[in-house]
Amino acid sequence: MKHLGARLTELKPGMAELRAGFREELTQQHGYFHAGVSGSLADVACGYAAYTLMPEDSSVLTVEYKINLMAPAAGEELIARARVVRSGKTLKICTADVFARKGETETHCATVLATIMCLAGKSDGMRLT
Amino acid sequence: MKHLGARLTELKPGMAELRAGFREELTQQHGYFHAGVSGSLADVACGYAAYTLMPEDSSVLTVEYKINLMAPAAGEELIARARVVRSGKTLKICTADVFARKGETETHCATVLATIMCLAGKSDGMRLT
Amino acid sequence: MKHLGARLTELKPGMAELRAGFREELTQQHGYFHAGVSGSLADVACGYAAYTLMPEDSSVLTVEYKINLMAPAAGEELIARARVVRSGKTLKICTADVFARKGETETHCATVLATIMCLAGKSDGMRLT
Amino acid sequence: MKHLGARLTELKPGMAELRAGFREELTQQHGYFHAGVSGSLADVACGYAAYTLMPEDSSVLTVEYKINLMAPAAGEELIARARVVRSGKTLKICTADVFARKGETETHCATVLATIMCLAGKSDGMRLT
Repeated sequence: MKHLGARLTELKPGMAELRAGFREELTQQHGYFHAGVSGSLADVACGYAAYTLMPEDSSVLTVEYKINLMAPAAGEELIARARVVRSGKTLKICTADVFARKGETETHCATVLATIMCLAGKSDGMRLT
Repeated sequence: MKHLGARLTELKPGMAELRAGFREELTQQHGYFHAGVSGSLADVACGYAAYTLMPEDSSVLTVEYKINLMAPAAGEELIARARVVRSGKTLKICTADVFARKGETETHCATVLATIMCLAGKSDGMRLT
Repeated sequence: MKHLGARLTELKPGMAELRAGFREELTQQHGYFHAGVSGSLADVACGYAAYTLMPEDSSVLTVEYKINLMAPAAGEELIARARVVRSGKTLKICTADVFARKGETETHCATVLATIMCLAGKSDGMRLT
Repeated sequence: MKHLGARLTELKPGMAELRAGFREELTQQHGYFHAGVSGSLADVACGYAAYTLMPEDSSVLTVEYKINLMAPAAGEELIARARVVRSGKTLKICTADVFARKGETETHCATVLATIMCLAGKSDGMRLT
């Protein structure tokens, strides 16, 4: 989170939104956010969304995710919006969409489908702080 | 690449290896490399491997990838080894395995399956430098 | 399509819906539709949705898809609803959701993220008939 | 299995091979095995491979898989070879490669990366018979 310069801008049951502002070290040669940044931001957003539906003493673990990169992530800010589509006891299936914001315009630049695991009774109080 | 502190340690037709040394800003709370770092390193390694089988004036674009995170990425160095499993004219299908090295021991911490696109005649001479 | 006993129940630009009725040979031991049936139905629905945004003389090819199986597919009918989330010239990125219908109730049993390729000028007039 | 006409041709710890012979109802218009058949066969092979590393009273559940379709599946027989790449207590990460055999020649037509869940103490004695 700190490395990405990301901040949590929305959190409600089954949903989370994260935003990361433009920083030179997150971009590749053309001034776009690097694909890895979109993946990381979406992954963390899925983790938060999943965590809202877990017992308090649990910890989140990303099992796997798939990302489709659909447009260059050019803009002032990268936004990842995640939601839980299936909340099992052990596994939460989440989707996230990543948008690049330039002024008022948001471009849908990536979509993610992720499997998040709930490790019950293993809270480390850290992932979300 | 620069941001990850990654360097290309092997490159031959259809294969590439990248390594990134431990840096505090690439790790999460427990001193592990962040999942996003594994994803990024594997993605870039797949791009390199694919590029070895493309015409010189082409450019690489990651269409999508899936990553399974299998073990904590703890160690001094993260290694991504990628190879092309199917080299079509437009699309190259690649796999990559990510290992965390601690002394002599390598732990297999992630596996990736990626689709890389060849944009012919659009070389920007940048991705690989 | 014929093998699955599937029929196209909706088709508009960027969207498609397919339905397959319960048949003993599509189910596994517990009377559920087999996972492979959900995957196939979703894949074909994505192909149709993508095709609606392609030139007439083109042919569709599934590059890859990822499916998360979320609930047992029990019911009288399996429904796959697909839509294009990104329509590039060569590649269409699609999502599909699969529901099992039992009377009036639909259970969301799988979600798919797929990459479909447009092969221009290679129409075989077959995939959609 | 029965529907695909598949048979288990190899099974050892962490590995499984399945084969399905050509049958008209498994093919699409051009005489190729349908993509859904490759996906199903690979999925089942991953389930078998994972099951070899589970306690006897457990049951297998496919959480998700991703398949890249790389070449037309034309031939007399479809072969799926699966192996476990990471065997966690709850989750087994598996890869499978699908080949179409025509005489002595095998064509690599699909590759799969799957997450299989172990449901301990829920054996139904069915999936593998």
